[in-house]
Amino acid sequence: MDPIEIEPSDLDPLDWNEFRLLARRALDDMIDHLETLRERPVWRPPTEEARMRFREALPRSGRPLAESVDLFDRFIKPYSTGNGHPAFMGWVHGAGTPVGMLAEMLAGGLNANCGGRDHLALEVERQITHWMSEAFGLPNEAAGLFVTGTSIANLLGLLVARNHRLGDGVRERGLVGGPRLIAYASASAHGCISQAMEIAGLGSDGLRLIPCDGRGAMLVDALRTRLEADRGLGLTPFLVVGTAGTVDIGAIDPLAELADCCAANDLWFHIDGAFGALLAFSPKLRPLIRGLERADSVAFDFHKWAHVPYDAGFLLVRDGSALRRTFASERGYLSRASTGLAKGETWPCDLGPDLSRGFRALKTWFTLRTFGLDRLGRSIERNCEMAARLAAHIRQCADFTLCAPVSLNIVCFSANSRDRDTVNRAIVECLHVSGRAAPSITLIDGVAAIRCAIVNHRTTASDIDNFFADACAAAREVVAGSRPAGPAR
Amino acid sequence: MDPIEIEPSDLDPLDWNEFRLLARRALDDMIDHLETLRERPVWRPPTEEARMRFREALPRSGRPLAESVDLFDRFIKPYSTGNGHPAFMGWVHGAGTPVGMLAEMLAGGLNANCGGRDHLALEVERQITHWMSEAFGLPNEAAGLFVTGTSIANLLGLLVARNHRLGDGVRERGLVGGPRLIAYASASAHGCISQAMEIAGLGSDGLRLIPCDGRGAMLVDALRTRLEADRGLGLTPFLVVGTAGTVDIGAIDPLAELADCCAANDLWFHIDGAFGALLAFSPKLRPLIRGLERADSVAFDFHKWAHVPYDAGFLLVRDGSALRRTFASERGYLSRASTGLAKGETWPCDLGPDLSRGFRALKTWFTLRTFGLDRLGRSIERNCEMAARLAAHIRQCADFTLCAPVSLNIVCFSANSRDRDTVNRAIVECLHVSGRAAPSITLIDGVAAIRCAIVNHRTTASDIDNFFADACAAAREVVAGSRPAGPAR
Repeated sequence: MDPIEIEPSDLDPLDWNEFRLLARRALDDMIDHLETLRERPVWRPPTEEARMRFREALPRSGRPLAESVDLFDRFIKPYSTGNGHPAFMGWVHGAGTPVGMLAEMLAGGLNANCGGRDHLALEVERQITHWMSEAFGLPNEAAGLFVTGTSIANLLGLLVARNHRLGDGVRERGLVGGPRLIAYASASAHGCISQAMEIAGLGSDGLRLIPCDGRGAMLVDALRTRLEADRGLGLTPFLVVGTAGTVDIGAIDPLAELADCCAANDLWFHIDGAFGALLAFSPKLRPLIRGLERADSVAFDFHKWAHVPYDAGFLLVRDGSALRRTFASERGYLSRASTGLAKGETWPCDLGPDLSRGFRALKTWFTLRTFGLDRLGRSIERNCEMAARLAAHIRQCADFTLCAPVSLNIVCFSANSRDRDTVNRAIVECLHVSGRAAPSITLIDGVAAIRCAIVNHRTTASDIDNFFADACAAAREVVAGSRPAGPAR
Repeated sequence: MDPIEIEPSDLDPLDWNEFRLLARRALDDMIDHLETLRERPVWRPPTEEARMRFREALPRSGRPLAESVDLFDRFIKPYSTGNGHPAFMGWVHGAGTPVGMLAEMLAGGLNANCGGRDHLALEVERQITHWMSEAFGLPNEAAGLFVTGTSIANLLGLLVARNHRLGDGVRERGLVGGPRLIAYASASAHGCISQAMEIAGLGSDGLRLIPCDGRGAMLVDALRTRLEADRGLGLTPFLVVGTAGTVDIGAIDPLAELADCCAANDLWFHIDGAFGALLAFSPKLRPLIRGLERADSVAFDFHKWAHVPYDAGFLLVRDGSALRRTFASERGYLSRASTGLAKGETWPCDLGPDLSRGFRALKTWFTLRTFGLDRLGRSIERNCEMAARLAAHIRQCADFTLCAPVSLNIVCFSANSRDRDTVNRAIVECLHVSGRAAPSITLIDGVAAIRCAIVNHRTTASDIDNFFADACAAAREVVAGSRPAGPAR
């Protein structure tokens, strides 16, 4: 054997103290950033200089860590999405918390791979599964799995339903030559349901979009009619996806009625509760999602209304064995042992497609445990109250009209203009560029509407009042044909 | 309107200074932990007390943050997988770095959602795409996407290939009634390829496992024969998956020959390079993966041989438009704008199934930029040298036999015993419980072998020598029928 090498050639710091000081400074700067979020614009357009900093040549040699921290500070942090800011109301973005950041730091240092093996990180994930089963009213035997987000969680739920319907051997033989499976969701369902049908090989044509009532909730009678018609055509219905909180307007399907319909027709009942499932945290709002406890599977995100740092999606499946049957496989390199590190019957890699999985459970555990469900629930309630406040402003204003009922935390409204589509888009762009607010756009009946999804725990009544004033000013300037030059505040 | 509320009711700290002190302490403790990894056992069996700490009742009320940090410290950190430890050699786990932890802390604080929109985080992800395209020799127009891990990256690559073959309309009509698509991979391919066939609706029967040569590399002649036979049966070959680094023994398929075969037969050429693709970082080892530059798509992980904290998988697709065609869709709530926060033509959500995506690019950018490809490449070379060193020990030892050629960083060996399966498993369990080393088990020709995947940048020659001595001692004690009581060192 060669003599043992002496020089350190690993990727640890040569000088731990120097690293420690740098890391402390980075931490302090990040805490400063979070503490002073309100003082900065919600968003500012990235400069060309900033973009160019990330068009560097391939780094054959290393560069000092302090330089990268500095580049982060000067060119990444100032040009972020702004979803931490109380005036951010676009899409459906969680706001994060300092608690979540602390947990992510610990997870980054621990560097657990939560695909399997016997270590405490998996117990933390199991704790979250049990907590959420209880919070949603699912049985204690339900299986749970962290994934990136609800899009993937919906896909996995759909795959379980697909394989459950097609039965033994489907994993081997695939779909070609089999029956045509049909799924049902509301016309307001998220696009990821359609995409999940594509990925699963069922095709988006196999998804029936059922009409909604005036509040955006699926019409169960229309579902029943369609089910019968499809059966008459020799097709094979297998799945109903109920939505708890539609992306456009925050509508909630009649989940209990859907559960009845699924039970009567032997269909898998999956719920896309990306943000709405967490209404379960609020005793006051929980009745809105009555029926959630009867789902076969529920997909939702912790990074939205629980403000866990991105990403932390989750799938709960009532019959854990169905999840396992869909994904588990025998592989020599995943052999289990009766003792030691390879101990354990069910590993997360038996319940989903990921073998390499970060420790999403830690930031979620820190969040749920530090705030408690009651406080998170109140934060959700407050978002809904803020949406009602904004809606009241709009109802009293001659320049705007509500485009959809406001039953939860999302407000869609439009300028009262001849060319609403163009004007609404211009108002939103104008608000973004001003740095004063960040709503987004969605289409209501094919026309662009201004959409405020109030998800941020930092958004107060005065933020809502300020936003409304800003929106009014932006509308006037857009209609007058001149956008405000508006320096970022 | 109601009077504006005064009390803070968000999820930020009431006392920022208190939070800052706690976060600093947590950071310091984590750095201490990393600095002193070697002084602790690689792994220790979780105590029942530790497990019970994560069977708490649902937290309706919050608990002090300091208490959770303390629980992490006492019950999670000590019972981790140990993949940071130089004696960890199980499965294929990256070891993490302090640099990665720092970046994860910043990402956790920034809380970017990298599904889309105009913010610098996406430029960082694009930077990684360009760097990796250059490192692998793919064209600059290649599209790239962070995902959790190679299992998902392989799935997405397979979906692109599937839709590319089935052409326009497949997203809508699905697979039922269509041709039977057939994919090809080596008999040593990772199980996630088969699982990707299942998920995609093609069925694992549609995957042909082609025999390998004595070094575990796919026999291209056998592939050609099978291709012809399948065509003769009226089936539709569409995809060849080459493996750069098989999970069991680290074999590499003849990628250039596979590229020729794919070109001649109009097949999509995907490479599962979970860890092996990063051999491209080493000028010395790069020739082993000649042909990588001709792939249509490459899946790999940064959390393995680049030691980015979990998880950080990646997919590169030569023809970016094919990736976009597979996943992009028109959705009102994802409307693009010519200016403002919704600016941008291609967002990551157009290239894959995730709309909610954490900022994996940041920890990867920090890692590649701080160390540089040369240093990461040397770290990979050293792992391969350490594997050769271990193999040399085993060749000179009467008690053990190598079970497979050692061409990369993985050493599979067996005790020279009558009941190898049982004895090898017992040796591995014994090493785990002793806390001295963490190899894993895989099956070679159906029999359990002791498997050391040397992936850790901290593993030195003396770690290898110590491991070998520990393995010899464990073997003697197992054969003698008594496991060492071995207190954790």
